[in-house]
Amino acid sequence: MRELLEEVIVPAFKFNKVGGGIGLPEMDDGASILVDGKSIVITTDASTVKPLFFPGGDIGKLAICGAVNDLSMMGAEPLAVASTITAEEGLLIGTLRRVVESMNRVLEEVEIPLIAGDTKVVERGGLDQILLNTTGLGITENPITDSGLKPGNKIIISGTIGNHQLALLSMREGLKFESPLESDIAPLWEMIERALDVGGVTAMKDPTRGGVSGALNDMSRKSGVDVILQEDAIPMSGVVRRASEMIGLDPLELANEGVAVIGVDGEKVERVLKAIRKSKYGTNAEIVGEVTEGSGRVIIETYIGGRRIVREPYGSPMPRIC
Amino acid sequence: MRELLEEVIVPAFKFNKVGGGIGLPEMDDGASILVDGKSIVITTDASTVKPLFFPGGDIGKLAICGAVNDLSMMGAEPLAVASTITAEEGLLIGTLRRVVESMNRVLEEVEIPLIAGDTKVVERGGLDQILLNTTGLGITENPITDSGLKPGNKIIISGTIGNHQLALLSMREGLKFESPLESDIAPLWEMIERALDVGGVTAMKDPTRGGVSGALNDMSRKSGVDVILQEDAIPMSGVVRRASEMIGLDPLELANEGVAVIGVDGEKVERVLKAIRKSKYGTNAEIVGEVTEGSGRVIIETYIGGRRIVREPYGSPMPRIC
Repeated sequence: MRELLEEVIVPAFKFNKVGGGIGLPEMDDGASILVDGKSIVITTDASTVKPLFFPGGDIGKLAICGAVNDLSMMGAEPLAVASTITAEEGLLIGTLRRVVESMNRVLEEVEIPLIAGDTKVVERGGLDQILLNTTGLGITENPITDSGLKPGNKIIISGTIGNHQLALLSMREGLKFESPLESDIAPLWEMIERALDVGGVTAMKDPTRGGVSGALNDMSRKSGVDVILQEDAIPMSGVVRRASEMIGLDPLELANEGVAVIGVDGEKVERVLKAIRKSKYGTNAEIVGEVTEGSGRVIIETYIGGRRIVREPYGSPMPRIC
Repeated sequence: MRELLEEVIVPAFKFNKVGGGIGLPEMDDGASILVDGKSIVITTDASTVKPLFFPGGDIGKLAICGAVNDLSMMGAEPLAVASTITAEEGLLIGTLRRVVESMNRVLEEVEIPLIAGDTKVVERGGLDQILLNTTGLGITENPITDSGLKPGNKIIISGTIGNHQLALLSMREGLKFESPLESDIAPLWEMIERALDVGGVTAMKDPTRGGVSGALNDMSRKSGVDVILQEDAIPMSGVVRRASEMIGLDPLELANEGVAVIGVDGEKVERVLKAIRKSKYGTNAEIVGEVTEGSGRVIIETYIGGRRIVREPYGSPMPRIC
C-alpha cells in the first residue's frame, strides 16, 4: 500500500500543500493550513473494520477515535469532525442507530461536535453494511510532525500494545485465548494535551496499521535518526505476548487504536511520562527506548541481550482492521 | 434519505456545531468554524457514481468538483481538499491512475491542493471498484447559507439543467437520445467568486441529487419564503427537454454537477448575472424567478400560463448518480 501511495497516488497530485503547511508529500497523520499564525489541521480516514461490532468497540467508535487521535498526533486540539456514511442496501436501521449512537458517545466524552456529513447508499456487496469516513479539524500553534525526532530524545509508548488487532482476529477466526481480549480503542486527546502542556514532545504517531514497528520506522526514516528499543520495556499484556507467539505474529506489527508513540526531549521525559500516566488511557505508559544519530533504522535490544533490526512490516497481514 | 437523516442520524449527535458556526442541524452544503473572525468552512461527501467513467467526467472529477462546489455554495474560497480512496480488491492500477489523474486535472484547473488522504482496500462487491470521499476546506468572512432568501430576491440558475443525470442514465441503460448527452460536471468557484465580487448574493445551493426542485424547496423552506419560477426562463437544452419527457422524468428533479441556484438581491441581479455569464461555466445563466413572502413553497408558472407547486422530489429515483 505504501508503494501504491508513493508511486501512483501521491505523485499524481501536483498541488499538494498550502503555503508553508504540512501537505501530502509528508504523509503524516494529517495536513495543516496556516490561518493568521495558527495551523488549522485536517485529517481524513476511511473506516472499513470487520466485523462492525467487536470486543471493546465498533466502527462508529473507531471512526471518531481515528479522527481525534490523528489530530492529537499532530499536536492539534480537535475542534470538530465531519463524517460520511456509505450504507449498503438493506442495512438495518437498528444497526445504523447503534453505530451513530456509538459515534456520539465518543464525541460526548471528548466534547467535540460533529458538524457536517453526507450519506450514500450502494448495492449490497463487500462493505459489510457500512463504511464510515471521518474528517477531523483541529488547531494548534505548533504542529508536531513525524520527522521531529532528535538524538537524545526518549520514546514513550502510552499503553499496552496489540490488543486491537488480536481482539478482531480472535472474533473473526473464532480463536480462544487464555482470557478474552478487548480492543484498546480510545480517544487520546486528553492524554496528549497533558503531555503537550509539560512540553518537550518532538514527534508523535499512533501505531495503527503496521503497529509500533510501522510507526517507529516512519518516524526514524523521516527524522533521519535511529531508534533503539528495549524489548523488556514495551508495555504488553501476558495474553497478547503469548497469543501472538502462538499465532506467529510480531506484536510490534499489530494494529492499535488507543496507543501513542511519542518522542520526547530527554530532560523532560520523566515529567511527560508522569503526565501521561495520570490520564485515563495512559496508565500503562512506559519509556521504551531512545533516539540516536543514525539513518532511519529501528533496533531492538531483546530480552536475551541480542540486537535486531525491526523492519517495516511488509504487505498487509490482515485487511479490514481499521 | 432526508427522513433517515432527520430522524436517526442528525438527532443522534448532541454536540453538532462549534460556537456560532454553521453545524449539522442546518443541513447546509457545509459547516463553519469561526477562527479569529473568519469562518473556516468544511464540506465532506462520499462519491459512489456508477459507472466510474461517464460522458463528460468520472468519479475523480466528480469528487473534486463536489468539494469545490459545496465550498463555493457556502461562499467560501476553497483552500484545500483531502480525500480517501476505498478500493476493491482487484482494482486495476491503470483505473486508479486514471481516477487520480482526473482528480489532479480539476485541482490544477482551480489551483487547489490535495493535502491529506487515506487509502483502504475492501473485498470485491457493491462498490464498482472504487469509492472516493472528499473533504473541502475553505475560508470566508461571510458564509452564505441556504436560509438567506428574502422577498424581492431574484433566482439565477447558472447553466442548463439535467445533463448530468441524463448522461449517466443513457450510458447505464443504453438509451440513445437524438444527440449524445454529456454531464455538466464542473468546478464552479471562479463563477461564484465573480458573483460574490459584485455582491448581493443571499443564498446558494448546487442542485445535485434532487435537482433544482430539491435545492429550491430546501432554500425556500429554510428561508421561510416562497419561490416563483418561470418555466420558460429555465435554461435547458432541447435534447434534455425532449429526453426527459420521453422517459417521464421531471427535468427539475434531475441531478446536476456543474450548476448553481443563486438567490440575489433584486437590485443587483442584472450585474450578478452579467458577471456569471462571463465565467467559463456560466455562459447559459438565466434569471428564472423571484422570491416572495410565503411559507416555503416553490411554485412554477408554466409555459401555458398555469401555476403548479413544485414538490420536493420523493424518494431516490436513481442510485449512484453522485
